[in-house]
This record gives sequence, structure tokens and C-alpha cells, in this order.
Amino acid sequence: MTSAHSQTRPPAVCLVSGGMDSAVTLAEAVHAGFCAHALSFDYGQRHAHELDCARRVANAGGAAEHRIVTLDLSVFGGSALTTDEEVPKDRDEQEIGTGVPATYVPARNTVFLSVALAWAEVLGAKDLFIGVNAVDYSGYPDCRPEFLAAFEELAGKATAAGTERGERFRVHAPLMEFSKQQVVERAIELDVDLALTHTCYDPVERDGAVLACGHCDACLLRLKGFEQAGRVDPIEYAR
Amino acid sequence: MTSAHSQTRPPAVCLVSGGMDSAVTLAEAVHAGFCAHALSFDYGQRHAHELDCARRVANAGGAAEHRIVTLDLSVFGGSALTTDEEVPKDRDEQEIGTGVPATYVPARNTVFLSVALAWAEVLGAKDLFIGVNAVDYSGYPDCRPEFLAAFEELAGKATAAGTERGERFRVHAPLMEFSKQQVVERAIELDVDLALTHTCYDPVERDGAVLACGHCDACLLRLKGFEQAGRVDPIEYAR
Repeated sequence: MTSAHSQTRPPAVCLVSGGMDSAVTLAEAVHAGFCAHALSFDYGQRHAHELDCARRVANAGGAAEHRIVTLDLSVFGGSALTTDEEVPKDRDEQEIGTGVPATYVPARNTVFLSVALAWAEVLGAKDLFIGVNAVDYSGYPDCRPEFLAAFEELAGKATAAGTERGERFRVHAPLMEFSKQQVVERAIELDVDLALTHTCYDPVERDGAVLACGHCDACLLRLKGFEQAGRVDPIEYAR
Repeated sequence: MTSAHSQTRPPAVCLVSGGMDSAVTLAEAVHAGFCAHALSFDYGQRHAHELDCARRVANAGGAAEHRIVTLDLSVFGGSALTTDEEVPKDRDEQEIGTGVPATYVPARNTVFLSVALAWAEVLGAKDLFIGVNAVDYSGYPDCRPEFLAAFEELAGKATAAGTERGERFRVHAPLMEFSKQQVVERAIELDVDLALTHTCYDPVERDGAVLACGHCDACLLRLKGFEQAGRVDPIEYAR
């Protein structure tokens, strides 16, 4: 790809958490021909390791740039991911799929997409990418297509681009209908290095390395995805 | 008001910038019988004075508590309020009212309301208060009723309260149709101490005090509001 070509690619803002889904979503944005601007949040999550993974995923995934916005939602409490509440372990699939999980961060995707929209306005971008997935995470209200459609509607009314120039924003969620197995398979197709990604809600530090617990909902879903895809997960587990 | 009574007041999240509009909005929330939780942002604005005013306004205005969320939008650039770009001075009314102002912060109210929604979820609140005003700031797309209606719609789809319990969120903008004159008059009716508030986009420090410039769009609109209300603005100006 020549640099002249790369300058003509339309800009898009892509939310990159450092997880497997957002790594594949970034790859989809680049594959679709966008100049991807990767955005991560330092939102009081318990593990800085997540942001290290986000940086590596953004670099390896061909993002044009990567910015980290500090936004400390832990001042409100309300979720196991940002407080000291215990992360649920070894739940069976039925438990994982039912109700709003204890690890739910209030209004998280609303907040993340809003900040992505702010950057999109500055960049002149009309496209946002987010790695949400309705299949594995049906308990999260802000991972559903109706939510994303409502956000697109809001974006048109919130911005100069929408109200003065009639431009439409689009929230792309290329993994929306994917199972974790399909995410793993798509990662392999798009040459995404899943060894760089991070999924665990409750990682363990051992001899300077950060290992996934292998027991939280996120680890269980990830491991099942690899198993069903007939692949071995390249990250290290503590169990 | 007894403390038993105060415990039965429904919670509301109220955005408090430290400005005149948000001070009156907080007073409206308390006046309407809500237990007001005041929310401010440290968003890379150039003047910490703004946050000092927000603290004083929240305390004096009867907020149950006040929290400040760090959210540095200046990493994106794009506005005179968070960069070193020059603030426009001494513009006439027609210039102030036309187009999107140079001081526009991209998607600011979308971001602020999203974070307010996150706190509302934790508090179990369904009501958000914001001091936007369509009359004086017609250039800001995210100050219009259509924008607030779209946000209410989004909130219902973004939250467990909306999707699981069918509850409706409401974004209150009590000053939407007020002129600055009416804001000053309402402040006096509700006993709001406007001496605590801050409006200027480009304040001047002199002998340890922070003075309003008296020339930016915000100062000009504020001064005109006091003049039309036949009142003297209690804050100090540098001019």
C-alpha cells in the first residue's frame, strides 16, 4: 500500500480495549479500507496490563495512531471491574448468559462511544468501530443493535457534521453476530496476533508475567471459542 | 426539611460546571424536590478556577454530594476551550449567534450526559439535569431539544433500568427557553448566589484573584443578561 493511497482512506475511530474482540474489530476496520484511529480508556480498571495489551494490539493491527483517554468511572463504584468486588468464577454457560453480569460497568459503551464521537468530530470521521458482541454478552444492554442504532441517531443530532451538513454517523460492530468460535476463526483469517490480546477479568501476576485466571466468565468464553475453533489459545493461563 | 423527608426525595444527577446556568439548574432540581447529586468534569479546561466555582456552587446549592470526574478531551485538540487557540473577543451579537462557535468542545454534552448516565445507573436515578440553553447558544448542536430527546431514547436502550425494567430516563433542561435575562431573574427568585459562579472563557489572574475578561462571548452574554434584568453582576471583571 503506497502512502498516497493511505492518505485517501477515510478516517474511522476504533475502540481498542486490548481484548480479542477489539483486536479483530480493528483488523476489520483496516480490512474495510479505513484509516483506523485507535482509542483506549484508562478508566480505573484494576489492571494496567489491559492498557499495555491495547497499545500492542493497536500497533500490530495497523492503527494510524493510538490515544488513551483518562476517564475514571470508579469514582461512582458500581462494578466488579472497577471496584474490589469479587469477580464471579467458574459459572456455567447458563449463568453467564442470564441477566446483567456483576462485571457490568454502568453505561460503559455509551461513555466510550461518546468520547469516540468527540474524536471523530475533530478528525472529520463519520465511522466508529466497536467490538461488541450480542451472542456471548447478551446480559449487557449496551451491546445490542438497538443501542447502536440509537447512538447513531444521537450522533447526528449532537454534532455540527450531523446538524449543519446532514452527514450520518455509523457505528460498526462487525462482530455483533459472531460466536467466540467465529471471532477466533476471523482473527486467523485476518492475521490478528491473538497472543497480544487480553481477556481475563481477574489476571494473576506470577514471576513478572501476567497470566489469565482461566475461571472468570471472560476466560471461560474465550477458552471455549478456541476449543470450538480447534485452536490452542496462545496466551498463558494461571490454572 | 427533616432528614426523613430528604431520604424520600428521588435522586437526580445534575451537571454543574460552576457557571451561572448550571447553578440555576441545580437550584431548579432541588426546588423540584430531587435529591441532587452534582457532577463536574476536569476535562483539561484551561482554568482550575472553573472547578473551584463548581465546588462552591454545588455546596451552596444544596447538592447531596459533588463528584469530579477526570476526562481529558484535550488529547484530541479541536477547541479553543481545551487548546491554546485564541478565544474570540468583543464579537457582536449576530456573530455570537451564528454557526458553531470556535469555543465548541466536540461532542461535549454527549460525553457529559453519558457519564451522568453512568452515575445515575449506580444511584438508581432516572433524572438528569443539564443547564443548556437554546436561546443564547444556538450555535451548539448539543444544546437543542432534539439532541436531549435523542439522549433520553439512547439512555433507555443503554441501561439495565431501561431494557430490563422498562424505566424511562428524563433529561431536564429547565433553562432551555430562557434568555440570559431570565436566567438572572430566576437565580434571584431561587436565591442562587451568582457571586460564586464563573462564566468567562478567558479569565485573568490579578493579585491572586481570578477576574472575568469581560470581552469573550460568554462574558458579553452574561453582562447583557444582568443589564437587561436591571441587576449588577456581583463577580469582578478585569476590564
